[in-house]
Amino acid sequence: MSATPFESLEKTLEIHIPPEELKEVKRIMFGKDTKTIELPQCAVEAAAERGFDLQGSAFSASVEQLRQPRIVRVGLIQNQIVLPTDAPVIEQITALHKRVGEIVEVAAMCGVNIICFQEAWTMPFAFCTREKVPWTEFAESAEEGQTTRFCQELARKYNVVVVSPILERDEVHGETLWNTAVVISNSGSVLGKTRKNHIPRVGDFNESTYYMEGNTGHRVFQTQFGKIAVNICYGRHHPLNWFMYSVNGAEIIFNPSATVGELSEPMWPIEARNAAIANHCFTCAINRVGTEHFKNEFTSGDGKKAHTDFGHFYGSSYVAAPDGSRTPGLSRTRDGLLVAEMDLNLTRQISDKWSFKMTGRYEMYAEELAKVVQHDFKANIIKE
Amino acid sequence: MSATPFESLEKTLEIHIPPEELKEVKRIMFGKDTKTIELPQCAVEAAAERGFDLQGSAFSASVEQLRQPRIVRVGLIQNQIVLPTDAPVIEQITALHKRVGEIVEVAAMCGVNIICFQEAWTMPFAFCTREKVPWTEFAESAEEGQTTRFCQELARKYNVVVVSPILERDEVHGETLWNTAVVISNSGSVLGKTRKNHIPRVGDFNESTYYMEGNTGHRVFQTQFGKIAVNICYGRHHPLNWFMYSVNGAEIIFNPSATVGELSEPMWPIEARNAAIANHCFTCAINRVGTEHFKNEFTSGDGKKAHTDFGHFYGSSYVAAPDGSRTPGLSRTRDGLLVAEMDLNLTRQISDKWSFKMTGRYEMYAEELAKVVQHDFKANIIKE
Repeated sequence: MSATPFESLEKTLEIHIPPEELKEVKRIMFGKDTKTIELPQCAVEAAAERGFDLQGSAFSASVEQLRQPRIVRVGLIQNQIVLPTDAPVIEQITALHKRVGEIVEVAAMCGVNIICFQEAWTMPFAFCTREKVPWTEFAESAEEGQTTRFCQELARKYNVVVVSPILERDEVHGETLWNTAVVISNSGSVLGKTRKNHIPRVGDFNESTYYMEGNTGHRVFQTQFGKIAVNICYGRHHPLNWFMYSVNGAEIIFNPSATVGELSEPMWPIEARNAAIANHCFTCAINRVGTEHFKNEFTSGDGKKAHTDFGHFYGSSYVAAPDGSRTPGLSRTRDGLLVAEMDLNLTRQISDKWSFKMTGRYEMYAEELAKVVQHDFKANIIKE
Repeated sequence: MSATPFESLEKTLEIHIPPEELKEVKRIMFGKDTKTIELPQCAVEAAAERGFDLQGSAFSASVEQLRQPRIVRVGLIQNQIVLPTDAPVIEQITALHKRVGEIVEVAAMCGVNIICFQEAWTMPFAFCTREKVPWTEFAESAEEGQTTRFCQELARKYNVVVVSPILERDEVHGETLWNTAVVISNSGSVLGKTRKNHIPRVGDFNESTYYMEGNTGHRVFQTQFGKIAVNICYGRHHPLNWFMYSVNGAEIIFNPSATVGELSEPMWPIEARNAAIANHCFTCAINRVGTEHFKNEFTSGDGKKAHTDFGHFYGSSYVAAPDGSRTPGLSRTRDGLLVAEMDLNLTRQISDKWSFKMTGRYEMYAEELAKVVQHDFKANIIKE
């Protein structure tokens, strides 16, 4: 790490590389340029006052003869926790509601239609500790919990669809915990919930101690502003997961995450963007930010000494488009709101151009995959 | 484009960004640093003399207790065509044999064990023209063609496995053409062939005019130096294609390609690298280089005037590792040989760390995919 915190890749490139070459560098690295959106002065001022990074980017699309453009603004929120992790549970939740609420207010000023928060946004990412207490107390009912009620108010107040990833307690099914995203319509009603399909067993991501693989399949939510799906965190490493949301019609797939520098930072710009390209859809990668400290020390299964933090959550939230372009990332170190404007018609336009689904040969893969999962599967290996 | 040709992204970054920050930029962009390999002086001199970019990089892996390291050197060759596209067919083929042969000689000096050439390496990428003549004359028998015989000699002479992607004529099955890679053992025998699974219909890639989707499935070739597979060109856009080679045991997947700047350059660093990450394997992306001019003009279905070239093939061949790291790319403008050294043990090491296959839930996907391909498939959409 350099002496000054490394704020963002994009800013560093812009500072050092001369304009003509920067244009080529950015073309190769980020694809077709996104346009910076002029955001309202009141939003810019509020963001400065409330101390978070505010960025706005627009993707372009072609005009069609038979369809009107379907312009949508999505908002991605990344944030640090507000209180220390040993503050009373209810105070931690309330403080996060307040902080995220004031960012959502700015999103509303920016005309955002769909907003998504980071994974397990009402709590520290405490799954590194393997302690059950007090962390399971952060779990709430997806349908009737206080966080869902809070999001319903935001949805109604600002006419915005809210994707709210929480730790869910499923009272109906034996008090089970899940890692779940609740999708709330702009009308304020709970449209439904969708659970994290793939659960990590890597590094400090001890989530399998707390909850199991999701059982809600690959639902897509038809909102007033487009068809959306939620691929939670570790699911972004699984191309089949993205694919299945896309096949079910998702035009925008959100990827609310919590991931740290040492482990995954070089993979971060690759995976969600590859999914946008491969599936002709928009993807929104959201990562929390900051370092979270815990009262009790824990080990990480890596031979290192016991410690009390998970490492640096590097933010860098971004949106990728089906044409392979992407927005700049939000800050690596600060809370942030990324406003991205897109014409959903681009998804079909790129599909008609590249035709990955038409050329996908899914019948062949369905047959092969059915064999792969059999106990007596024999790999197709040719030897001399 | 800048006034001077833009040689490579990596070189531009290195010229302009101060060392401390460059370290962070490279970590985020390319992952764990690859080590530059010291290549023999005779190889360096021969490359300079013969006018091609020579680079060597090594990936690191951990030492294990029960397995010896399985160190392999692969060589990726990218090259321009040698003669004008209207030279006699046999002269074009012979000139390419000669040119690639002299690069292979340097690869042998560098201790390369497995070498892969670019897609349809014995010919210009003439499929933009939609002319059948004389291009179909470049098609050869995979088993007994002159190019296969040439590669067998190279294999025996240098004790190297050769992956030779050609336009295949299948005389046994009605003189059919295929886009095929022939895999030749270091013993000199033809280990087998594998065909391009996904055929593009995009821009000037009029390949579906010449050949159909491959019918050789997802074979993996067990060589003395490891298990390899070949995902030809457009197949890199299809995550299921990479996945199926990996599930069949491939440790290294080659992606011999021919692709041009305007269309795909921002996607190039993303797709093969994502496949290496998602499948816990090494991937080798190879692209031809230069601009190829044709005698007769052709149109591109994009409203633009008829023209006589396909655009700039941007080279930039690279190798990606399962830990998300990658080598620098070869030149965007010059012939090149990339020597990459890897310990194949890294594939299992990363699989044990990240466990994407263990957490992949393939039974669920096999069931879902079987439904997706049915005519009466209904997308899983939740409405208010």
